[in-house]
Amino acid sequence: MIRIAVVGCGYWGPNLIRNFTDATESTVARVCDLAPERLERIKSRYPWIETSTVTEDVIRAPDVDAVVIATPVSTHFDLAMMALREGKHVLIEKPMAENSAQCSKLIETAEANRLTLLVDHTFVYTAAVQKIRDLITEGELGELYYYDSVRVNLGLFQHDVSVVWDLAVHDIAIMDFLLQKQPEAISATGISHVVGQPDNVAYVTFFFPDSLIAHVHVNWLAPAKIRQTLIGGSKRMVVYDSLQPAEPIRVYDKGVQIETDVESIHRMKISYRVGDMWAPKLDNTEALAILARHFCNCVAGREEPITPGLAGLRVVTALEAAEASIRQQGAPVSLYPLGTRP
Amino acid sequence: MIRIAVVGCGYWGPNLIRNFTDATESTVARVCDLAPERLERIKSRYPWIETSTVTEDVIRAPDVDAVVIATPVSTHFDLAMMALREGKHVLIEKPMAENSAQCSKLIETAEANRLTLLVDHTFVYTAAVQKIRDLITEGELGELYYYDSVRVNLGLFQHDVSVVWDLAVHDIAIMDFLLQKQPEAISATGISHVVGQPDNVAYVTFFFPDSLIAHVHVNWLAPAKIRQTLIGGSKRMVVYDSLQPAEPIRVYDKGVQIETDVESIHRMKISYRVGDMWAPKLDNTEALAILARHFCNCVAGREEPITPGLAGLRVVTALEAAEASIRQQGAPVSLYPLGTRP
Amino acid sequence: MIRIAVVGCGYWGPNLIRNFTDATESTVARVCDLAPERLERIKSRYPWIETSTVTEDVIRAPDVDAVVIATPVSTHFDLAMMALREGKHVLIEKPMAENSAQCSKLIETAEANRLTLLVDHTFVYTAAVQKIRDLITEGELGELYYYDSVRVNLGLFQHDVSVVWDLAVHDIAIMDFLLQKQPEAISATGISHVVGQPDNVAYVTFFFPDSLIAHVHVNWLAPAKIRQTLIGGSKRMVVYDSLQPAEPIRVYDKGVQIETDVESIHRMKISYRVGDMWAPKLDNTEALAILARHFCNCVAGREEPITPGLAGLRVVTALEAAEASIRQQGAPVSLYPLGTRP
Amino acid sequence: MIRIAVVGCGYWGPNLIRNFTDATESTVARVCDLAPERLERIKSRYPWIETSTVTEDVIRAPDVDAVVIATPVSTHFDLAMMALREGKHVLIEKPMAENSAQCSKLIETAEANRLTLLVDHTFVYTAAVQKIRDLITEGELGELYYYDSVRVNLGLFQHDVSVVWDLAVHDIAIMDFLLQKQPEAISATGISHVVGQPDNVAYVTFFFPDSLIAHVHVNWLAPAKIRQTLIGGSKRMVVYDSLQPAEPIRVYDKGVQIETDVESIHRMKISYRVGDMWAPKLDNTEALAILARHFCNCVAGREEPITPGLAGLRVVTALEAAEASIRQQGAPVSLYPLGTRP
Repeated sequence: MIRIAVVGCGYWGPNLIRNFTDATESTVARVCDLAPERLERIKSRYPWIETSTVTEDVIRAPDVDAVVIATPVSTHFDLAMMALREGKHVLIEKPMAENSAQCSKLIETAEANRLTLLVDHTFVYTAAVQKIRDLITEGELGELYYYDSVRVNLGLFQHDVSVVWDLAVHDIAIMDFLLQKQPEAISATGISHVVGQPDNVAYVTFFFPDSLIAHVHVNWLAPAKIRQTLIGGSKRMVVYDSLQPAEPIRVYDKGVQIETDVESIHRMKISYRVGDMWAPKLDNTEALAILARHFCNCVAGREEPITPGLAGLRVVTALEAAEASIRQQGAPVSLYPLGTRP
Repeated sequence: MIRIAVVGCGYWGPNLIRNFTDATESTVARVCDLAPERLERIKSRYPWIETSTVTEDVIRAPDVDAVVIATPVSTHFDLAMMALREGKHVLIEKPMAENSAQCSKLIETAEANRLTLLVDHTFVYTAAVQKIRDLITEGELGELYYYDSVRVNLGLFQHDVSVVWDLAVHDIAIMDFLLQKQPEAISATGISHVVGQPDNVAYVTFFFPDSLIAHVHVNWLAPAKIRQTLIGGSKRMVVYDSLQPAEPIRVYDKGVQIETDVESIHRMKISYRVGDMWAPKLDNTEALAILARHFCNCVAGREEPITPGLAGLRVVTALEAAEASIRQQGAPVSLYPLGTRP
Repeated sequence: MIRIAVVGCGYWGPNLIRNFTDATESTVARVCDLAPERLERIKSRYPWIETSTVTEDVIRAPDVDAVVIATPVSTHFDLAMMALREGKHVLIEKPMAENSAQCSKLIETAEANRLTLLVDHTFVYTAAVQKIRDLITEGELGELYYYDSVRVNLGLFQHDVSVVWDLAVHDIAIMDFLLQKQPEAISATGISHVVGQPDNVAYVTFFFPDSLIAHVHVNWLAPAKIRQTLIGGSKRMVVYDSLQPAEPIRVYDKGVQIETDVESIHRMKISYRVGDMWAPKLDNTEALAILARHFCNCVAGREEPITPGLAGLRVVTALEAAEASIRQQGAPVSLYPLGTRP
Repeated sequence: MIRIAVVGCGYWGPNLIRNFTDATESTVARVCDLAPERLERIKSRYPWIETSTVTEDVIRAPDVDAVVIATPVSTHFDLAMMALREGKHVLIEKPMAENSAQCSKLIETAEANRLTLLVDHTFVYTAAVQKIRDLITEGELGELYYYDSVRVNLGLFQHDVSVVWDLAVHDIAIMDFLLQKQPEAISATGISHVVGQPDNVAYVTFFFPDSLIAHVHVNWLAPAKIRQTLIGGSKRMVVYDSLQPAEPIRVYDKGVQIETDVESIHRMKISYRVGDMWAPKLDNTEALAILARHFCNCVAGREEPITPGLAGLRVVTALEAAEASIRQQGAPVSLYPLGTRP
């Protein structure tokens, strides 16, 4: 039984507490937040959990095996570093840290101490994304041509992070898992409609090797919530819409066939195949429940992290590049392969 | 009664012939195409129309007042120039010409000869776009923040023009009419998945003055046809989907209110207002019928061109800039104000 | 502060407990269920609530002002009667009782003891149904022509009640509130696809005065969940879909205009008006929260019951008539005006 | 080459003329209508067709092999009888005639003269209905439980026929083909909202052998056009929506499994299986083109009629029963097996 401390009880923390409580592999021993009224709510729901407003006490408590960090991103590095140095395994909210240098240091520290460092890229643990990954791995989609995602909200305007760090992070994490490739360059544009505030609309293009292109459109000020991802392959195409509970994934038996025509060297013949559509049944287990169990299994040495610190680093590196490109009105920013220790 | 010659009888030509025939202000006198079987089909439907495979004869015929050019873009300049020099008014398919220099010369020639030069930006003449223009003009949307359009097809892969010239041209023409502003810079990315062929996926960002941003996503290889435009304003937002015949326009009574809070200078308070949705009834007259009548009225001096040669020039200039940016992986290309005579 | 006892902790009971706990006008003092494990779950969530498996003790407890009955329908009458005789106010789940005779006796007992007797017709307390009621009351829809509802599930096949008592009860309760008229006759058809089991598909037509017709289609074995109600009036029509969270109500500015044409006596001219569509913004307060507060206000004498025992009686009477008609393959069953004491 | 005469050039006639002209097996020799302006329009489009306002001349013309009747239903019997007596094969619009007696006489006359008598139940010839028929025949849906169709219009209010004869006829014709069973009884309700006019809303239940139930909801005064058919089987269910061009058929891998549990005799266990959804690709050939070719092949003796006079008789018999039941507010009307000569 792995004993968990959850730091941060805002929007996401209570979901983590619930899932680590429900998991048979773990129990939530301690919870920390700076706001006493949030702790009271936790206490009334889970009377056995120790609560505290003093972060250090919770992280350092000897009855804690692992720390789950669900605080604002600006505090991720310090809290995770403290936990790792105390010999605690760490699960950290996305984005992993404020910059790639912080991510690298956390990865090094975790490795040096042989501790699990997992990043909560929640969507990766949904049945939908796992199913798409299977389709890609099994070659069902053929060669991948493009990944296009729209993620727009009529939601909360945030002051501390831009729409790229708030929303595009999800797509980048999903792409990191699905495509298993790293972009070579990023071009991004965006704008803030409020003076002095972070960007609230952004468009990010990712150039991958082998003519694979990806694009993410994120917007806080849309008239309606949209979550639509198109994935085009040479054999089949996928439409993924996480807001459609009945059919989140639709697989179109449509692809592009490119035939080399002997007769005409200068012309490429392209014929379209149009076929059936298929919406596979998906398991509806909560993604966070799967993630919680996976974290426990990683800590116990039974599984390898699906979204390890390196995944978090790759995502943060892409976010940095996108921000840099936005400041130059779309000028491309090159990326160098990560994931190998220098 | 204005006597029309239609040059080009491929996909769009027959629609132009039908609408100029149905208009009370005009008659189609002559039709030209290089393929005799196309002319035969026209002849069996409209026995009174003179047909010919010799373009010059048709354009120069003394019983022709105006020439409608519906041929591939590579021939637009020569044909339009021939017609203008013969003193014929000209309606020309989009895009107006292969490059902005050609557009400028056509404009000059038309002005020098006091002839009408109209570009067929068809969508501008739809009830939907006209309604959105009214909403903007009347201030219903407030200050405009963004224009975002997705126009993707599982359609014909074209060999002579890229997806930008084929599909984005529609959105640029619509924006030119709706926003009544010219972009200051363009950043675009795109890719061709077939060696030696034009780009089949592209993303184009337009930077306008006053923090207005626009973006167009065009794609020939999508699993489903999508036509979705989001227009965000400070007072209301619009979703425009030309594929939804029942409700092509949805106006959301949602906007962003930015309040200057006296107490906290460094913080901007942003509160959301969320209200009703409204789908106005639209007239369903065919856009081309309205355009045909408008062209006749321009020729007769009763109306001013809504999409004159200058609009065609502005659109082609934006297309050139988008292509240039794509070749530089998104590096921004600046644009200088057009539409004023140098 | 009204002290509530909730009897029955199955599917719906916990929702009632939560809402009566959250209401400022009430507190949940006691909860009863035959299954101890359900009570344990309540106790861990609300440690202050007294729980018991002995129904009589809970209902008769002197610290209880009102009893909420959320048990299977077969027990409604006995439990409600016990509570009323003990001088407790009663809120009772739909359907109110097993037959109309039981409903009448409960109404009489409540009146004799001057106690509040409310039926939980939950949908009546939703913002959507309240909005439609306003539109009808204000004459926005004009004269009502028809009410048509589809309520189909891929849900639980029930053994104790038919699909009519399980699903049509919702529509009948909504109609009872919206139309403020009682049907004069009912014709219904239905079928059971499992020998010895209750009907799982049914169609019920309601004949109202003044050419108003209503129809309800209920089905447990549908391939997809559908909740769609069409309401047609002479001035406007409404589409109500409780599964569309963004726009549950759509008001079409379309009605039927019937003109009496002086010239031709034998012919009726009917012209269509087709106009805008409008989706009003609705408050998203939980219906049960509004109902809980309303019950408390009724008990305190501050409000008149919106869904009193008489509404429950009218609904059960319609259910009985529908069942009787189904047994005769649609032969109409007449109904006589209810709601006046005999 | 079969020489066709088309009688009636209103809404549907021109479609028939076009398809019999395009078919390689036939040519349209003559067209008849009482309105000369309609004939002029045909003549300008098809200069070789002989037109006339004298019906007898057209039907009796010796250069005519077959007569297509597209006139109002009240004239079907006389015109078809005239054609059959002249030895012409007949294709007749739905509904076949005003009553079942007329249908029977036409069938007898056609048989006596060894002539083809086909009824234009157009939907039967669509790829969607053919695909559903294949699914049923191949046992993909399992045992059929229900057929439920909604067919509502905001369309033309008709004065000569009720909504049942206008719209329900389509569903009855589709059912006649798909289910290959005849209903044993019909219960129907309906209403006219205009004094002295035919019913404009109707609900029709069909009781088939083996616990198969069907229901059709037709309405002229709906706020939106709906065409939705649910077909439930023990193995799979189908949703058919002819207004969804991209995916008219959706097959749900959901069915009801009824297990006989040895342990508990008195209880039926019902377990649900929920699986994938699948939207098969359909050919998009126009149904009328397939029907035209089929009619020619029947005349030539190469095919057996799919929708022969007997199908038309069964449909009209069901329409009569539905009308009779409506007049009795839903009282069931029994039907006796048809299709066998008395």
